[in-house]
Amino acid sequence: MSPFSLPIRVYIEDTDAGGIVFYANYLKFMERARTEFVRNQGVALRRELEGGVNFVVANVNVNYLRSAFLDDLLLVTAEVKQLARTYMVFGQTVLRSNTELSLDGVDPSHCELLVKGEIKVACVDQDTGKPRRLPKILERCLVS
Amino acid sequence: MSPFSLPIRVYIEDTDAGGIVFYANYLKFMERARTEFVRNQGVALRRELEGGVNFVVANVNVNYLRSAFLDDLLLVTAEVKQLARTYMVFGQTVLRSNTELSLDGVDPSHCELLVKGEIKVACVDQDTGKPRRLPKILERCLVS
Amino acid sequence: MSPFSLPIRVYIEDTDAGGIVFYANYLKFMERARTEFVRNQGVALRRELEGGVNFVVANVNVNYLRSAFLDDLLLVTAEVKQLARTYMVFGQTVLRSNTELSLDGVDPSHCELLVKGEIKVACVDQDTGKPRRLPKILERCLVS
Amino acid sequence: MSPFSLPIRVYIEDTDAGGIVFYANYLKFMERARTEFVRNQGVALRRELEGGVNFVVANVNVNYLRSAFLDDLLLVTAEVKQLARTYMVFGQTVLRSNTELSLDGVDPSHCELLVKGEIKVACVDQDTGKPRRLPKILERCLVS
Repeated sequence: MSPFSLPIRVYIEDTDAGGIVFYANYLKFMERARTEFVRNQGVALRRELEGGVNFVVANVNVNYLRSAFLDDLLLVTAEVKQLARTYMVFGQTVLRSNTELSLDGVDPSHCELLVKGEIKVACVDQDTGKPRRLPKILERCLVS
Repeated sequence: MSPFSLPIRVYIEDTDAGGIVFYANYLKFMERARTEFVRNQGVALRRELEGGVNFVVANVNVNYLRSAFLDDLLLVTAEVKQLARTYMVFGQTVLRSNTELSLDGVDPSHCELLVKGEIKVACVDQDTGKPRRLPKILERCLVS
Repeated sequence: MSPFSLPIRVYIEDTDAGGIVFYANYLKFMERARTEFVRNQGVALRRELEGGVNFVVANVNVNYLRSAFLDDLLLVTAEVKQLARTYMVFGQTVLRSNTELSLDGVDPSHCELLVKGEIKVACVDQDTGKPRRLPKILERCLVS
Repeated sequence: MSPFSLPIRVYIEDTDAGGIVFYANYLKFMERARTEFVRNQGVALRRELEGGVNFVVANVNVNYLRSAFLDDLLLVTAEVKQLARTYMVFGQTVLRSNTELSLDGVDPSHCELLVKGEIKVACVDQDTGKPRRLPKILERCLVS
């Protein structure tokens, strides 16, 4: 089964004076992909926040292999590597598509790998910041 | 009386692939200056939020005259143009300093005007979003 | 003819501690819509930059009427109000969709107006910053 | 010898709807501290870019231990852990100060550790993206 992926266009807001995407902005792209991934499982972040549950990033380990540029079409993937009681570890990649987006989406065979990372996301109580059990609905996220 | 001003350095995060500061980021600089300005009057934003009060921008009208670049030292000013029951109008400028920051701060006579704007900030109830009376402590902000 | 519009999802990166979208971030959304609008006319920003042409914002006048929240689906419109020799004035709105995105896009009759603005964008020489004639290809952008 | 440190105030732009600093924004804070650290050694990023040299992040490994909040005063440290021919590895921390900034700066004994990371920064040719020797002036950065 191929991992969940989200197409993301690079806009001028994402770039810096070096002419490339600013390194912290890939973390935004990765969060967008995780958000759509869990939305697909039925988890809406706003509803969780209103219920007193917050998801906070506990660790990131990211390798930047190649730069993305203005107007690039990216494909950002997310899959669950580990699902524990109060946290999840996501494996994520950022790919550059060398063809344009079609109705069938992006063809992964025409993509090159730019960034690769592991992101540990913990579930916490919004008021106390203490660890909290992940919503049960997320259990089906685990790649089988 | 000269208006309140805050020195701000331009970092790579503030720039874009055009080699200049991204236009939306001047609004961040202006908000930093407004925040320090009202902090000087005794208003801390976090304490206000905890008390159910939020400040939201209702209108911005900004003229961009010259570009700021990476490593520039800026001086961002804030003064109150109008103080109404539930909102304030700030006059703000972004200047580039052509000398470095000294213990005496930045010398305004060695600055050039880059950006100029008026920002209307309304006080609202955090839960309902309805207009709310400004904290009384802000009344002394008005330039006399 | 209805104006060009781009659907944009609100992610956690767009929000602030007041629980709403941070006011400067609507300018990013508006720039994304303008970028896709001119891309539709055949103008790619990166190719322009490589040719020594930059587009810089000269003025923004934006009214914030209602707040957007995490997970909201927005529709951001862009149309050309004025097309001069070296600049364009865009009229733009940010709408909240009260239905989800379908294959037919977003139904504008189920949207409410959040933000409305006029953005003046000038064409400049990337090296000198001097005004430059707009690419001819943009002339067809004008709403007729 | 204590590492270089930069005081940074948390503004509303840095926070998210969870009421805390958005995780990607700590990478901005860390970059600001690295930038001031190398500026102290005589390296100005804009001058380097103009000379065809860019610094790009190759790897980040960051642990988020506690959250920062609106209005917090942070102290962000940077020291060089490894200095190779074409890259440097920085050790960095983000601390929260529990006293206000004085003329003597922030007292580290009144700080608590929030975030800790290692950042590998490579020196590349701006045009080709190929690795390039670090500016010699940086050699004195190494903690001795």
